Amino acid sequence: MSITEKGLKKIIAKLQNEDTWLTFGEGILKIIAIIIVAQLLIRFGKVMIHNIFKIRNISPLRTNVRREETLSKLLDNILSYVVYFIAFLTILSVMNIDVKALLAGAGIVGLAVGFGAQSLVKDVITGFFIIFEDQFSVGDHVRIGQFEGNVETIGLRTTKIKSWTGEVHIIPNGSILEVTNFSINNSVAVVDITIPYKEDIEKAQRVIEGLLETMPERYGELVKRPELLGVQNLGPTEVTLRIVAETQPMQHAALARNMRKDIKLELDQNGIDISYPRVVMLSKDPVTGV
Amino acid sequence: MSITEKGLKKIIAKLQNEDTWLTFGEGILKIIAIIIVAQLLIRFGKVMIHNIFKIRNISPLRTNVRREETLSKLLDNILSYVVYFIAFLTILSVMNIDVKALLAGAGIVGLAVGFGAQSLVKDVITGFFIIFEDQFSVGDHVRIGQFEGNVETIGLRTTKIKSWTGEVHIIPNGSILEVTNFSINNSVAVVDITIPYKEDIEKAQRVIEGLLETMPERYGELVKRPELLGVQNLGPTEVTLRIVAETQPMQHAALARNMRKDIKLELDQNGIDISYPRVVMLSKDPVTGV
Amino acid sequence: MSITEKGLKKIIAKLQNEDTWLTFGEGILKIIAIIIVAQLLIRFGKVMIHNIFKIRNISPLRTNVRREETLSKLLDNILSYVVYFIAFLTILSVMNIDVKALLAGAGIVGLAVGFGAQSLVKDVITGFFIIFEDQFSVGDHVRIGQFEGNVETIGLRTTKIKSWTGEVHIIPNGSILEVTNFSINNSVAVVDITIPYKEDIEKAQRVIEGLLETMPERYGELVKRPELLGVQNLGPTEVTLRIVAETQPMQHAALARNMRKDIKLELDQNGIDISYPRVVMLSKDPVTGV
Amino acid sequence: MSITEKGLKKIIAKLQNEDTWLTFGEGILKIIAIIIVAQLLIRFGKVMIHNIFKIRNISPLRTNVRREETLSKLLDNILSYVVYFIAFLTILSVMNIDVKALLAGAGIVGLAVGFGAQSLVKDVITGFFIIFEDQFSVGDHVRIGQFEGNVETIGLRTTKIKSWTGEVHIIPNGSILEVTNFSINNSVAVVDITIPYKEDIEKAQRVIEGLLETMPERYGELVKRPELLGVQNLGPTEVTLRIVAETQPMQHAALARNMRKDIKLELDQNGIDISYPRVVMLSKDPVTGV
Amino acid sequence: MSITEKGLKKIIAKLQNEDTWLTFGEGILKIIAIIIVAQLLIRFGKVMIHNIFKIRNISPLRTNVRREETLSKLLDNILSYVVYFIAFLTILSVMNIDVKALLAGAGIVGLAVGFGAQSLVKDVITGFFIIFEDQFSVGDHVRIGQFEGNVETIGLRTTKIKSWTGEVHIIPNGSILEVTNFSINNSVAVVDITIPYKEDIEKAQRVIEGLLETMPERYGELVKRPELLGVQNLGPTEVTLRIVAETQPMQHAALARNMRKDIKLELDQNGIDISYPRVVMLSKDPVTGV
Amino acid sequence: MSITEKGLKKIIAKLQNEDTWLTFGEGILKIIAIIIVAQLLIRFGKVMIHNIFKIRNISPLRTNVRREETLSKLLDNILSYVVYFIAFLTILSVMNIDVKALLAGAGIVGLAVGFGAQSLVKDVITGFFIIFEDQFSVGDHVRIGQFEGNVETIGLRTTKIKSWTGEVHIIPNGSILEVTNFSINNSVAVVDITIPYKEDIEKAQRVIEGLLETMPERYGELVKRPELLGVQNLGPTEVTLRIVAETQPMQHAALARNMRKDIKLELDQNGIDISYPRVVMLSKDPVTGV
Amino acid sequence: MSITEKGLKKIIAKLQNEDTWLTFGEGILKIIAIIIVAQLLIRFGKVMIHNIFKIRNISPLRTNVRREETLSKLLDNILSYVVYFIAFLTILSVMNIDVKALLAGAGIVGLAVGFGAQSLVKDVITGFFIIFEDQFSVGDHVRIGQFEGNVETIGLRTTKIKSWTGEVHIIPNGSILEVTNFSINNSVAVVDITIPYKEDIEKAQRVIEGLLETMPERYGELVKRPELLGVQNLGPTEVTLRIVAETQPMQHAALARNMRKDIKLELDQNGIDISYPRVVMLSKDPVTGV
Repeated sequence: MSITEKGLKKIIAKLQNEDTWLTFGEGILKIIAIIIVAQLLIRFGKVMIHNIFKIRNISPLRTNVRREETLSKLLDNILSYVVYFIAFLTILSVMNIDVKALLAGAGIVGLAVGFGAQSLVKDVITGFFIIFEDQFSVGDHVRIGQFEGNVETIGLRTTKIKSWTGEVHIIPNGSILEVTNFSINNSVAVVDITIPYKEDIEKAQRVIEGLLETMPERYGELVKRPELLGVQNLGPTEVTLRIVAETQPMQHAALARNMRKDIKLELDQNGIDISYPRVVMLSKDPVTGV
Repeated sequence: MSITEKGLKKIIAKLQNEDTWLTFGEGILKIIAIIIVAQLLIRFGKVMIHNIFKIRNISPLRTNVRREETLSKLLDNILSYVVYFIAFLTILSVMNIDVKALLAGAGIVGLAVGFGAQSLVKDVITGFFIIFEDQFSVGDHVRIGQFEGNVETIGLRTTKIKSWTGEVHIIPNGSILEVTNFSINNSVAVVDITIPYKEDIEKAQRVIEGLLETMPERYGELVKRPELLGVQNLGPTEVTLRIVAETQPMQHAALARNMRKDIKLELDQNGIDISYPRVVMLSKDPVTGV
Repeated sequence: MSITEKGLKKIIAKLQNEDTWLTFGEGILKIIAIIIVAQLLIRFGKVMIHNIFKIRNISPLRTNVRREETLSKLLDNILSYVVYFIAFLTILSVMNIDVKALLAGAGIVGLAVGFGAQSLVKDVITGFFIIFEDQFSVGDHVRIGQFEGNVETIGLRTTKIKSWTGEVHIIPNGSILEVTNFSINNSVAVVDITIPYKEDIEKAQRVIEGLLETMPERYGELVKRPELLGVQNLGPTEVTLRIVAETQPMQHAALARNMRKDIKLELDQNGIDISYPRVVMLSKDPVTGV
Repeated sequence: MSITEKGLKKIIAKLQNEDTWLTFGEGILKIIAIIIVAQLLIRFGKVMIHNIFKIRNISPLRTNVRREETLSKLLDNILSYVVYFIAFLTILSVMNIDVKALLAGAGIVGLAVGFGAQSLVKDVITGFFIIFEDQFSVGDHVRIGQFEGNVETIGLRTTKIKSWTGEVHIIPNGSILEVTNFSINNSVAVVDITIPYKEDIEKAQRVIEGLLETMPERYGELVKRPELLGVQNLGPTEVTLRIVAETQPMQHAALARNMRKDIKLELDQNGIDISYPRVVMLSKDPVTGV
Repeated sequence: MSITEKGLKKIIAKLQNEDTWLTFGEGILKIIAIIIVAQLLIRFGKVMIHNIFKIRNISPLRTNVRREETLSKLLDNILSYVVYFIAFLTILSVMNIDVKALLAGAGIVGLAVGFGAQSLVKDVITGFFIIFEDQFSVGDHVRIGQFEGNVETIGLRTTKIKSWTGEVHIIPNGSILEVTNFSINNSVAVVDITIPYKEDIEKAQRVIEGLLETMPERYGELVKRPELLGVQNLGPTEVTLRIVAETQPMQHAALARNMRKDIKLELDQNGIDISYPRVVMLSKDPVTGV
Repeated sequence: MSITEKGLKKIIAKLQNEDTWLTFGEGILKIIAIIIVAQLLIRFGKVMIHNIFKIRNISPLRTNVRREETLSKLLDNILSYVVYFIAFLTILSVMNIDVKALLAGAGIVGLAVGFGAQSLVKDVITGFFIIFEDQFSVGDHVRIGQFEGNVETIGLRTTKIKSWTGEVHIIPNGSILEVTNFSINNSVAVVDITIPYKEDIEKAQRVIEGLLETMPERYGELVKRPELLGVQNLGPTEVTLRIVAETQPMQHAALARNMRKDIKLELDQNGIDISYPRVVMLSKDPVTGV
Repeated sequence: MSITEKGLKKIIAKLQNEDTWLTFGEGILKIIAIIIVAQLLIRFGKVMIHNIFKIRNISPLRTNVRREETLSKLLDNILSYVVYFIAFLTILSVMNIDVKALLAGAGIVGLAVGFGAQSLVKDVITGFFIIFEDQFSVGDHVRIGQFEGNVETIGLRTTKIKSWTGEVHIIPNGSILEVTNFSINNSVAVVDITIPYKEDIEKAQRVIEGLLETMPERYGELVKRPELLGVQNLGPTEVTLRIVAETQPMQHAALARNMRKDIKLELDQNGIDISYPRVVMLSKDPVTGV
């Protein structure tokens, strides 16, 4: 136990020694300096990246406009990782910690770190392939798991998605399994109309077809004339008719709202009612007579 | 700590040295050149792949038409992976990074990378077997997990599926466990009709059978005469009759819509009502008399 | 960096050298030849396998008819794996890639591949035991997880199941945990009939028992006389009677449809109504008098 | 590349050489012979196992009748595994494959196999403990996960359960976590009766108690007099009374059906109605007067 | 291939040799003898264990009565594991199998076994801590995952729970994560009473409070006077009042049944109705007048 | 096989030897002595721990009252682990088992144990951090996963929570991921009141606001005046108003009950009805006239 | 066994030896001293950290106000970890335990610890990246998994979130996968209004649009004029109109409450009713005439 005593004495002696405090202060100052330099480097680097992309935009080398912003934001992201990583190693060496020996001295610690860090590695690998395979770009409307929205940034480790109600979803790339991208192809608006069984299905279809005919000229986002598919379902009290309309990407929600209103008004004008739930009430039990 | 000081001085000295900037600039230029060459190679390679498939199409060697497009898109995919992989290694060597030493210097880093990369390896292995076993080809209508649509491309690492409403689902091959392929066999349209308990079941069956008899001549996509299976369910207020019809692959949804309309009209003409929900209302409690 | 320069120069020199292109072309031709030979071998092998099974069918060695088709399809499957595997190794050697060194040079790559390939190994092991333990054969009606249908092929790595609506489910063997096989034993048709509380339960039971008595002579797929189990449930407004009938494998769905219709008609003829939902309506609150 | 050429030439030379075909044919014959011998051994072994169990049944050594069938089927199962395993090794040696070297030459392959085979090992270990701890025997009614039925066989790797509707569930032992065994203790039939709030609870209880008194003499499977627990629930429109009855194992479902019918008839005779759903309808809003 | 031939000849020679059969028979006899001895040892051991616990019950050393049965059953369990484990090793040595070499010859097999056996080890470790930490004892009423009932035995590897309807749940200890023990503390009976909005809440509360006052003298299992908490919920058509009553462990279900009946009768006598669902019916739409 | 024979003879010889039994009895006695000493040590230690905490309570060193009980119970827990662990090792050495050799002789067994014990290690690590980070203390009301109640003890391996209905939940610390602690901050009582669409929202708000004004003086647990947030929802037949009230920790449930009753009575006095479900009944279909 | 005897004697001898107790007492005192020093260091350190942040706030170096509090709380957290970690190692050395040897002596223990500690390592790595990538700061309103609230502290190992009802959720950083941050962008209030089919949709839209026009001047938290999107849904008995309004972060809930009330009152004044559920009652079955 005398080792501890010695240790305590040494610590106290060190704390009373002026040099300790000088060295300590010097170390603190160096660390602060490193952090400031790192931040300046990142700011400077970001300005450069944006300038390069500006120049590139007027050069003949330009390829895919959609990936420009993705790459620009990714380079910002990589830059800050690299600069801070180097700054971190430098700070460790200021604090007299030998990183190499740390990483080599595996044993239990190495096992735990190796396993604990695997999800970090997976994040970076998956992130790399998301960008490389162009699964989605900044600005695309995507759904990842339960989150849906526009991609804000694709980083090395995380992707940020902004939903239409304003919140930002931050998803580690390693958690991104299936991705649904809404911005690559045209979208399809789907409108279901229910009419009662008593209505004439064929008349209702004629009325709707007549209306659909006039839509392409009114709605520019329509890629082609909407289509009345037919009787989608025979429900307990109603017939469901389905209409689909191909639109430019992500225009389907707005168009469907307009179509719903138009068809409702048209059916009203033609005396075709949208179906209410219906129930047959038997006030007496026809068999027992009670 | 003098090591860090020295390090800082060296860095400053280097930053002031013109050679550093020249070498730096030269490296940047080389990297840009590599990227450009890689992109040119990929474009050139893709043109070649498509030409080969065109030639092959007129040769007597041709085997399975359905796999042609799959293979063509896969080769594009492999080409870009291989070219970019080589380009990436070249860039690393331009940046004076020794890849071999990196991979050999396992320890903690190796453990983390090995574990983190296992899902990447699994993606490639599974992707290879999807193509090799011909589980599905480009153009097939499939369901994978919760996603359904037409296969757009099968890549080494991911498969892209386009749903009928336009969105593209990008699925890592390693996440593809069970696959349901709708394009291999004929499809079956299933139509359930509910009639009230009061209706004559046998009459309803005769009416429907009569209608089914006329269907094959009207609907070309029918493989054989639809079949009335019988009483599928005795619900709380209705009898459910089930009709099935074998059609050519993926024609069942459209046919079912037509069948629903036809049967509804036929039953109307024969005075057989589709069942509404029914409830017996007892305005007094028969026992307590309240 | 001169190494890269040299590398670039070498590449350019090589590209300008005619021999490179000759060797390249020769390699391509060899690969094509290998693929063609592999395909011919597989076709030839499949013909042989089917002939062997034909001969075997007339030999006295024949054992289990149900496993014949399973084995025949499995041998096809193994044949193509083995031939393509050898072709793949040959192509790698044409491309001057040393497979053995690859597999031996473990390190990070080996770790990742070893982990990534474990599900492939699991698929093959499980597949082997499915066939060896005769869990199901080609043609059996099975349910695996959420998929149900007839087994089309059992391969080394995947099993294909065709559902009754036509789609093919492809399931990696390693994902097959619990299997439900419907083709081994007789099936049981279960029919639930609801009658109102007001009906005489004992009369209804007598009527149904009388009908069940006549069923075995009408339905050949019945293994024995159906059984009326009794009052399965006292629901909110109805009594549920359960009838069960043992049939030959997978005949229960068709039989249940016929039984439902027969019992409904019989009850109608005996004036016993199937129960409608019933509700007691109190138009005034008996306590507050409002 | 000359290596491949040589390889191809060698293969062609071998294919033209008669000896190759002879050796090949000899190998095929040997393999067939091994398979036949293995099958004969298994058949012979199974007959022996059954005879041993027959002898044992008349010996004084006999212990637990319930485990006899389990052990007999398990020995069949182990026998076929052992015989086929030895036959498999012999076939491999006929094909000149050195198994030991395969297993020793670990590396990537070993890692993958070791991981892939762990679920196989887990199956066998769990299977062993299921039998050793007598968790269930052949013939017991059990529920494992979502599957319920009678145990058909307990094998080293899988357990087969036959449900009452005829299908066979095949479950790998390693997937068997929690087991529910219904055949060890007496079962309890639970019958819930709902009466309207307006009924006299105490009278209803007296009527039911009177009926329960007479049950033990009528139903032999009753272990003791059923018990009326009391008011299990005060629902929105009804009072729920719960009756429980201890029966011999797995007799509870049949007994409960009889009890439901008996109680329903008894309540009818005593003028106590089973409760219908009840709703107070206010045709005017008492406050706003609309 | 001559090796196999030799192997076959050797086997045949061995089978013809009388010694082989003698040795074989001798081995079988020894194995049977070992099994019999093992069973006798276990029976003898179990008797001893129970005697020790009987003696202990009269000694002054006695500590925790609740753990006695747990320990007694556990010792039985450990005894049979130890005896059978030694018997198993002896049988292996009779069969000339060198266990040590097996365990040492790791490689692929060792990897698979090590991984496959980890859940077995986890079972034993968790089982040990369940007993050591006295999480529950034999006889306690517990809920583990989805299973609830009285603990029958706690073994080294599995725990058996008997539900109140008679089935036995067998749970591997490693699957026991969260345990809920109902037998340590007093239980609380919770009774919710709904009254219509039209009733006087304060009067209802007075009536119920008056009843609760009389309960402690009638129900001995009550630990203290039940408490009327107040208005638990304002539902769509009713006010819910909550009453709680602390009882001796596991007496709450029976007490709650009695309380429900008592309160229902008391409210009836005071003219306070339990609430029925209520709905305001507007026979005309007050706005459109249709 | 003679080895086994010798082994059996040796065992029999040993069993006949008196010394064996003496040594055996001596060992048993030692083990019993060790267990008794261990139990005495634990009892003595627990008394000491409680005395230390009593002294500390009057010392000026006292810091955080809330953690006292946590630490006291934890020290009890650690004490018994340490004492029993040492006792266990001593017993093993009495039984001549060399623990060190066991742990060193890794191989397959070591792999299995290492993997199987990882959840034990995880429990202890997580438990340590729960206490160190003061996530919750004994007496706090917490929710962990699906379990909610007051913390009884925090041990090294498990945490015990007592729910308000009396049952004790025992949760391994390693299973504690997210913890919700209700005892750190003030709680908020949330009361939702529904009024019919026909009522005057502004009048209802004025009435409620007037009542809320008087609450702080009546309910001491209120931290500040409750707040009427406004129209939380426009339901199918009602307007929902939300009132929130900040209370002292865990007082919100009781306060909400009082608030519900007060607001109900206040609205009654002001002639504002709480909303019943409302439905518009159209006795004729306004369009088809049926 | 004499070893144990010796061990016991030694222990007794030691317990009788005064020195043992002195050393023991000395050790206890040292441990207490270490704990006190550690606590003093942490208090002193926390004061320093807060002073540094105060100074920084007036310095020109100041960068991102939002991260200040995060960093301040994080430094507190790191400080206590580091001080206690050093204290822990010192205590271990006081107790003569050689930590280095412990960590080096891997074997089974090392495997278990390495695996068990991986989630701890993962917590720290993920925590580091949460702060480094500025996923959220102290004070932000976030949703992590099923928990939502304001961030209280971000520690190295856990993050604390305070929900609006007062409870504190403590989440290990390693369990934080997807994060949703509500405080970065403006929020969007979504209000759905249902009107009956009989109402004039266009009139309702005009009335609402007129009201929305006046909102920006009344509600300062509105970023721009709310928007009436159109017919969001055609329900069974009603038309749903959707209004969205962009607000400052986290103001949407309060604004939506006001908007609901305003729109309800406005529609009332314009005689447009909010829709009640509607049902068509057919008192006779129109077909069968019963």
